[in-house]
This record gives sequence, structure tokens and C-alpha cells, in this order.
Amino acid sequence: MPNTTNSTDRTDHTTTDTDDFTVTPYAVSGNVDYEKLLERFGADPLTDAYIERLPDHPAIRRRTFYAGRDVDRYLEAAEAGDPHALVTGRGPSGPMHLGHVLPLYLAKRFQEKTGATVYVPLSDDEKFLAKEESFDSIGEHTRENLRDVLAVGFDPARTRIVVDTADADVIYPIAVRLAKHLTPATVEAVYGEQDTVGLQFYPAVQATHLLLPQLVAGRQPTLVPIAVDQDPHVRVCRDVAAREALPVEKPGALLGRFLPSLEGPGKMSSSSEAASIELTDDSETVAETIRTYAYTGGRATLEAHREKGGDPSIDVPFQYLRFFFEDDDAELERIAREYRSGNLLSGELKEIATDRIADFLIEHQRRRDSLGSLADELEPYRLSESERRQALESAGVPTSLRP
Amino acid sequence: MPNTTNSTDRTDHTTTDTDDFTVTPYAVSGNVDYEKLLERFGADPLTDAYIERLPDHPAIRRRTFYAGRDVDRYLEAAEAGDPHALVTGRGPSGPMHLGHVLPLYLAKRFQEKTGATVYVPLSDDEKFLAKEESFDSIGEHTRENLRDVLAVGFDPARTRIVVDTADADVIYPIAVRLAKHLTPATVEAVYGEQDTVGLQFYPAVQATHLLLPQLVAGRQPTLVPIAVDQDPHVRVCRDVAAREALPVEKPGALLGRFLPSLEGPGKMSSSSEAASIELTDDSETVAETIRTYAYTGGRATLEAHREKGGDPSIDVPFQYLRFFFEDDDAELERIAREYRSGNLLSGELKEIATDRIADFLIEHQRRRDSLGSLADELEPYRLSESERRQALESAGVPTSLRP
Repeated sequence: MPNTTNSTDRTDHTTTDTDDFTVTPYAVSGNVDYEKLLERFGADPLTDAYIERLPDHPAIRRRTFYAGRDVDRYLEAAEAGDPHALVTGRGPSGPMHLGHVLPLYLAKRFQEKTGATVYVPLSDDEKFLAKEESFDSIGEHTRENLRDVLAVGFDPARTRIVVDTADADVIYPIAVRLAKHLTPATVEAVYGEQDTVGLQFYPAVQATHLLLPQLVAGRQPTLVPIAVDQDPHVRVCRDVAAREALPVEKPGALLGRFLPSLEGPGKMSSSSEAASIELTDDSETVAETIRTYAYTGGRATLEAHREKGGDPSIDVPFQYLRFFFEDDDAELERIAREYRSGNLLSGELKEIATDRIADFLIEHQRRRDSLGSLADELEPYRLSESERRQALESAGVPTSLRP
Repeated sequence: MPNTTNSTDRTDHTTTDTDDFTVTPYAVSGNVDYEKLLERFGADPLTDAYIERLPDHPAIRRRTFYAGRDVDRYLEAAEAGDPHALVTGRGPSGPMHLGHVLPLYLAKRFQEKTGATVYVPLSDDEKFLAKEESFDSIGEHTRENLRDVLAVGFDPARTRIVVDTADADVIYPIAVRLAKHLTPATVEAVYGEQDTVGLQFYPAVQATHLLLPQLVAGRQPTLVPIAVDQDPHVRVCRDVAAREALPVEKPGALLGRFLPSLEGPGKMSSSSEAASIELTDDSETVAETIRTYAYTGGRATLEAHREKGGDPSIDVPFQYLRFFFEDDDAELERIAREYRSGNLLSGELKEIATDRIADFLIEHQRRRDSLGSLADELEPYRLSESERRQALESAGVPTSLRP
């Protein structure tokens, strides 16, 4: 499920648009027409044939991810047993919420099914630049977020986690290499005007993230599962990859719909203000949060609900089940049917979702709590010295002066 | 003597100006009015009192450096035996010429006289971005330039050499920290429009260079000896230092006139096309280059010269003696007098300069040739791990995740 954190993080960087909705990496407004977005962005719809070939996951099967770029190339490599990679990042601007961790579990599913390499870059540089927070504060979020990333349980042999400032020895020189022809005009067209020269440069860092699996381990199809509003980031990187003489192919994308926030579809979960389910919540808190804040598709009164039924398509607890927490299609359909008929009440649907989410969190928290020191746990996921050298050399950056 | 390499490196980035001459870090055109520049930049003239207090050097005594910022603060620290630093960098865009190495020898003189710490940053990132050259090629220049820097013979206990890509682990996070409030408008006003987002970001890297001595070793007056056209870089860093809550004071500057190119005063030595004296030239080549290319203040014919005399103020061999190679004021005055009177011919003046320069180069080359492997020789000049951590921590960048 796509990370939607960025969607409302920086509404100061809005860009105008000719249609009645706006989608940029930093602003989503209006009612998003997902089909029109596809057309505007020039991506391919995710056909049934693709969905059958992708690893089975509710978010794929039910078209939360509904479009892509170069998915074919990725599938061919996965099916042939050739190297293939996913990149799914995290901007450490605060504690991770439920919606933030779901893309990581999706990536883990891909890794389990086809042996995909997974890269998880943490953009603490971008968050420091974009937020009114100190580096210490962003650093604290980074450490906490890393524990959640580690709790997902990726295979360390096939997973690399990088932190922009802590891994700057490899990230910055490659970003400079990629920035050689990345013009201010290109970046402004995609990202809008930026407040600082740090943010002007950041797209080169992000392109580095997306090419890193190939720079470390050789040319291979790379898929970036993201909310559709993040697609411009991938397109900038694809342009860079196509323009520069580098041993990489253009990274592909798996483009998703926005995960609705608890308080209603069409709204985004903001990292600071909106109600949300925290990864550290206990079952009681999850139940209370869903009871209090979850937007439902139920009727105003019990009588009306029993008579006219609810609308699962706008019911957030139902959408959580559909996106991630109810794997069984028949069971999901049964729940939808019961809800539509009025037999299942909003409160009961909330309870079903609460139970599933609480179970999920208990397992996540169990793994998180069993982690040792962050440095020790992170170690097997870090780029080795030879991987760092290989990445720099693939990008044409001399390494003979590395300390 | 100021490094003038940048002055004509990138004449594509010209900026217009209301006066009849233009000086930016990337373009110098017209006849430079040094007094007007001072007024325009708001720097202080270097008074006799300052010159008496600064380490004795022909380039100081004869006002090649003719202005400055916060020179007083620097002198107070130097006289009190308190920590004080110089920063003098190198853009590794090609082999170093005679003019490139003179500022380093000036810095060495300062170090010898008052124990100044000297930082020498090599901006291979900027040169890669600004030039149509591969990173390998810039890397080769960097390695060769480093050998020349090492040949100067700085005291390794008081000198640090950093290379932006090789020391990116410390340079990039600090540059991000400094970029937090560095706006595109500020950078564009000083540096002009940039072709790439890499160059847009680079001023934050350059500000990092100038603050690094203080971030590593604590607040101390820092002097940056540069050609006056580079003063805007210092001003950007001063603004950053004043704005951000960092344990540093604003770096000062020692502003110099341009070293004339061999082919005439008012022209700059370009790293690629103009005739120049290479640091690897043998005495024969130096003689041949000066005989062939050096612009003289002599008359067109021997008779005219004997009768009317030469003009040392525009004679390049004389200017080399004045700026650097004739330390004795009385002897320099004698040479000038003889030249003006017509007793000393242009060819004879060229021979005097040739001898001095050749002697200087023989010594430089001897030290360069006696160097061992670059890695071994560079090692004692590199930032230690504890210095790296200290610099990051002083800049407020978390270090707990350093690999």
C-alpha cells in the first residue's frame, strides 16, 4: 500500500493544474480521477495478465496498485530467476503509522515469493530540509523508523537499508553524478519551486535511491511501488537513467491509489495532525481510535442502516480490510454483502477491522520488541564496503581516495 | 597569491552589471577597478597597520592582497596564540599551474609564522558538474593536484585536506545542514543561474569548506585568502554562519588582485588554453615559455627601450617578481628603476624572473618527486574519525548511525 506521507507534508509547494484536481509529489487536492491521472502521467494500466503474474497480495489483486511502468521487464526477470529489485523508501518525518509500514510488508511479500532484492532508503536529508525540525529530531525519528523497518523481517541477504546522511559517502557522489544533467527547469516542472538549494538538489538523491540496486549489483529491472502522486519522482529518475551512460535500466513503477485516512476517503493521512493508528498502539487504543475516528459508510441511525444498508466503498474499516487485512476474497465479499444488506452494522465492521489490525500490530510489535541494539540489528542490512565501492564505480565515481 | 582558475572557467555564467566591468565568481570582464570593487562588495581596505601585523610576505607587503573582512579578529587570535585558521581550496579541473600553487605557499607562510591551521578543500564535485569531463578525468586531476598540495610541505598536525566526493560522509550532511535556509534566490544573486541542480547546491558545499575548521576544532577566526572575484562565496557563507545557530563565527577574507596571465595584465590565466607555466616544467621550458609568451612593458625596439625605458607596472615578468619571487623590496625597486631607465632590457628582466621561477619549481618538484604513494602521504592530512564525528556533531548532524 503506497506511502502517503508526502502527500500533505508540504502543501506550501502546490502547483496549479488545468484540471479540477492537482497531484504533485507535495500536494494532492480535489477529487482524484485515477484514470485521468494515468492518462496525464502516461503510465500503463495494470492488466489482469500482469496481476496474475505478480506475487499474490490483496493490494495487487484488488487493484490498489492499478498502473505501472515496465512491469513486464520486472516480471520477466522474476519469472526467469534473474536479479530483480524493489525500492520502497521512507521519509523519517515522524513516527511511522499503519499506512507507512504496509508498503514494506508488500515488498516483503514480493521478496518471499520471487527473491526480490529490496532497498529501503531513508531520506533524513529531505525531511530535515522540508520540516521545521532539528537534525536531532529527524535523527530520532530515523532511529525509531529503522526499528519498524527492521521489524518487518526482511531477509538481510537480499535487503539493504540506507540513510542519506549516514551513507552520504556513497549517496552524495552518485547524486552528483546523476545531477550532471539534471536541470533546474526539469526539477521545477516536477517538484515545483523549492525553498532551499538543498531541496533543489534532492531529486538527484532520490534518483540515486532508485538506481542503487543496479549500481551495487548490476543491471536489473527495478520496481518502485508508490502512490501515484509520487510517479513524477520515478519519471525524473527514468529520464536521468536514459540520458546518462550508466550500467542501469530505467526503474519501473507500480502505481497505487491513496490509502484513505481514518477520517475519510479522499483525505490523506497527515503525519502530524490527523488521527491515525500508530505502530505502537495496543489493541485497546486501536479499538478506541477506530471507534472514535474511522469514517464509515453506515447510515445515520440503526433503523436506516438495517433498512438501506451501508456503503463499503467509502467505509474506511472496510477499505483497510480490502487493501491489506482480509486476504480471502470470498470472505471480503461476504462482509461487503452483509454490510450492504444492513445485516452488518458499522460498529460490527469496525470490530472486524480492529481485530485484524490489532493482531497485525501485536505481531509487528513482538518483532520490534525482540530487536537488539539498533546498530547491531542494522549491520547486516547495510551496504558493505565492497558494495559501496561497486556502486561508486558503476556510477563512474573514482574510489581510490576513499578513507 | 589568489587562485584565479575560476575566473574564466565558466564564462557561460556571466552576469551583467551596471558598471563597465563585471566581476562574479565565474566571470571577469572589462578593466577591473579594484577600489570600486571594494566599495561594491563592502569590504575593508587592508591598512598599513594590518599589513604590519600579518605574516611578512611579498603578496601582503605589496598589497596584492589589498582588502579583507574581519582581518582584525584573525590577527587578535594569531597574536594571542589562540586557534586561528586559513582555508584555501583548489578546483581540480586540470593540472595546477604556477599561479594555482602560490596561494598554498602563502598559506604555508602563515602557518609557519603563527601556527595557523590550514584547510585545503578540493571541489571535485563542482568541477565534475561544471566541466565536460568524466569523473575519472576529474579524479585523475584531483590525484595529481593532491601531489602538488602535498609538495608544499604543510605541517600535517595543523593541516587538513578534504576531497568533496571522498569525504562526502562529512561534507554532504553538513552542506545539507547549511542549505536549510540557503534560498535559490540568494544563490542565483551571487552565482548567477546554474545549469544543473548540482551546481545550485554547491554553494552549500563551499560554505561547508569555509566553516569546517571551526566545526572540527571549535569557534575560531578563519581567513580565506582569495581573489576578489571569489568574495561573494565568502559572503554567502558569512550569511549562512550568521543565520544558523552553529558554534562558529563568520569566516573572514583576505581579498586579492588577480594574478595577470603570462600574456598580459587584465587577462586571466585559463586552465585550458592560455600559455602558462606548469608545475612540472623544467628550467628550459620555463625559459622558453617566458621568452615566447610573457607580456612585457618593454619598447618595440632596443633603441626605443634604451631611450625611453620600460614600464614595470604592466610587465608580467616584473609582476611575478613583485607578487612572489623577489622578497627583497630594495632589490625589487632596483630592478624597477633599471627597467624604467632603459638600462635593463625586457629580455634581461625575463631572465631574472625565469631564474627565480625555475629555482622555485626545482624545489617544488624535488619535494613532489620524493613523495611516496598518494594514499600514504595523504593519510596524516585527512580528517580522523573523531574529527569527522566532531564536525558533524558541531553542525547538529546525528552520528549514531555512522557505519
